[in-house]
Amino acid sequence: MKGTMKAVWDKTRANTPLVHNITNYVTVNDVANILLACGGSPIMSDDEDEVEEITSICGGLNINIGTLNRNTIPSMFKAGRKANELGHIVLLDPVGAGASRLRTDTAKKLLKEIRFDAVRGNISEIKALCLGTGGTHGVDAAAVDAVTEETLDQAVQFVKEAAAGFGCIAAVTGAIDLVSDGKSCYVIRNGRPEMSGITGTGCQLSALMTACLTANPDRKLEAAAAAVCAMGLAGEIGHKAMLPGDGNSTYRNRIIDAVSLLDGAALEEGARYEIR
Amino acid sequence: MKGTMKAVWDKTRANTPLVHNITNYVTVNDVANILLACGGSPIMSDDEDEVEEITSICGGLNINIGTLNRNTIPSMFKAGRKANELGHIVLLDPVGAGASRLRTDTAKKLLKEIRFDAVRGNISEIKALCLGTGGTHGVDAAAVDAVTEETLDQAVQFVKEAAAGFGCIAAVTGAIDLVSDGKSCYVIRNGRPEMSGITGTGCQLSALMTACLTANPDRKLEAAAAAVCAMGLAGEIGHKAMLPGDGNSTYRNRIIDAVSLLDGAALEEGARYEIR
Amino acid sequence: MKGTMKAVWDKTRANTPLVHNITNYVTVNDVANILLACGGSPIMSDDEDEVEEITSICGGLNINIGTLNRNTIPSMFKAGRKANELGHIVLLDPVGAGASRLRTDTAKKLLKEIRFDAVRGNISEIKALCLGTGGTHGVDAAAVDAVTEETLDQAVQFVKEAAAGFGCIAAVTGAIDLVSDGKSCYVIRNGRPEMSGITGTGCQLSALMTACLTANPDRKLEAAAAAVCAMGLAGEIGHKAMLPGDGNSTYRNRIIDAVSLLDGAALEEGARYEIR
Repeated sequence: MKGTMKAVWDKTRANTPLVHNITNYVTVNDVANILLACGGSPIMSDDEDEVEEITSICGGLNINIGTLNRNTIPSMFKAGRKANELGHIVLLDPVGAGASRLRTDTAKKLLKEIRFDAVRGNISEIKALCLGTGGTHGVDAAAVDAVTEETLDQAVQFVKEAAAGFGCIAAVTGAIDLVSDGKSCYVIRNGRPEMSGITGTGCQLSALMTACLTANPDRKLEAAAAAVCAMGLAGEIGHKAMLPGDGNSTYRNRIIDAVSLLDGAALEEGARYEIR
Repeated sequence: MKGTMKAVWDKTRANTPLVHNITNYVTVNDVANILLACGGSPIMSDDEDEVEEITSICGGLNINIGTLNRNTIPSMFKAGRKANELGHIVLLDPVGAGASRLRTDTAKKLLKEIRFDAVRGNISEIKALCLGTGGTHGVDAAAVDAVTEETLDQAVQFVKEAAAGFGCIAAVTGAIDLVSDGKSCYVIRNGRPEMSGITGTGCQLSALMTACLTANPDRKLEAAAAAVCAMGLAGEIGHKAMLPGDGNSTYRNRIIDAVSLLDGAALEEGARYEIR
Repeated sequence: MKGTMKAVWDKTRANTPLVHNITNYVTVNDVANILLACGGSPIMSDDEDEVEEITSICGGLNINIGTLNRNTIPSMFKAGRKANELGHIVLLDPVGAGASRLRTDTAKKLLKEIRFDAVRGNISEIKALCLGTGGTHGVDAAAVDAVTEETLDQAVQFVKEAAAGFGCIAAVTGAIDLVSDGKSCYVIRNGRPEMSGITGTGCQLSALMTACLTANPDRKLEAAAAAVCAMGLAGEIGHKAMLPGDGNSTYRNRIIDAVSLLDGAALEEGARYEIR
């Protein structure tokens, strides 16, 4: 609907959603900076002795298993249960599901025991969770799984079923991004292929999505889709700003910069999607 | 006194203070780079089995509880005790004190058992430690606590009492920064509001302050104040360098850049403070 | 041999080597971005319950002890043994060896129990491992140990002996870089002194070297030397791109940028080395 992207984004900026992140130490700084860039406020905390309290003062919880370990896994469950109890937004980013049993099993167990509002991953990760198969190239999607114009119909169907299975929004991001609540599916064509040359654009998107959902709990599908469009659009804006000699590290900065400068009207104008 | 800022800064650059950091994994890379930027040398180490040895070869210890956990908390105490034994500089950054019992209690217990040379935090964190109250917005200060021109007299009084209570320098940073040894108080007006749109400027300042204190143990109040002025001035210089399209991620780089290029004369000239 | 550097680099870009990193949380984001910059794909994982599986799907393993702790040390051994079993490339970066018994002993024990393909460190770290002495300035090399034109002959001899002792490639990097397989030694003069003003250039180089070795297991000495030349050349290219006001944080980005844009022909042309 005309104006939805703008409304979601403006409300996110206005509400300063406080987001609790239990996330990996690889991309955590970028996750914090992108939350600040979109108007949110990040807090990172992963010790069992405080996660319930920390999540209580927040509005959203972003669980990312990128460098999960035996200390932080119990914290994910504790924080998730408390967030559920309080009716907070909870998102899962199953980084590397399919790459190890620990990752696959932890993500599956979280999905069973915690009520999520959204799950965001690449196609291989979501396949690993839903089908028990799916290629893996570490934390990157396997080429064989890629969503292309040729496989789009099937992929839309798969993501709808994934969402229905999860009982929440499923967001599968890649060259073409798909965001579904089980009934309809946003097919989003923002973004640049160069984004895969930077670590953490997926983690950043999950954080951004948590912030948008936290500020817009009354329209979750639109909020999740707006986050995906915003990240992709920032990738486009950042890419246009690249000068000769600029490479992937500068591009990383440029994308976060673009999010920090993005307003609702520009997002509304730049978002490229259809609903199926 | 005329020339003090310059003298503190020049000595920090000249002495290459080696600083041991037990700090959070969110902003640790920026902390390392800002220590290098000011002429220091960082080492990060948080395992109980080595912190005493590591702190022994350093001149200063920077304890930051931003992502404290059950493994690193005992290391903070062990390193702190050893640093005390050796007469090293020790600083506490009580990130998120007031946001969880674990943070508040750990910071209080550290204050009781370790002799600090400085405590640096935002106003909400320092209130949480001194008054047992204080708003909290996660790791950011609560708006209600903000130090403004209107509340300045009271705030100066509070920070003096905080310093007296801690038995060391108290630095409360925000829109207006206050640094006191319990008797006099630097009121510092360097900095830019946009600095709060980047993660870790507080953590970076704590590291910078540890370096300045380590190189200038004979004038701790001036050293702490110089670090605050330097960070704020770098925020101003970095902001002037911003071009259209630059956002919070570029600003982050610009601030560290400005610290790396800052010399004592420029700090002396750019520092804006009064002593009350 | 003419064309070797180009061939190594082109093959690294072409093969997308998947590298498992058990590394420190200080520089981990830069390590991930430089692996992507050279055409590789990074995965970070340090929990005992998954490291064997994660390393199995990778081609190379990069062990960096920069923030080792009691949880990650056993993971280093487990992953190393599994990588050995599978004939994967394994590299050791003994960050801070000599600065604590835990670091020195862990590095030595790893060298005894794991078969490495390369060990890369600064001169003080390698001396600590080989001679049981060597100065230390935390994680930086001690000035007294520096490899200069005056001490070069001795240093070459030392690195050859270190490689022979390790039974693999030894790379000692600093103002002059030395890479030996025990018989011959590359003496490399790429790089800029300003690189030591950024945290993590050593860690990044170790990751880059692991990627080059993984893609070129048939010529390990050349692969290791090419990685060192590439990192140094990126430091030169990045430095040339520096504008007034740019400092160490921008330089950090510029170096990774330069790696991401570097092609084999430029590396061949820009590499400055002799073989002794």
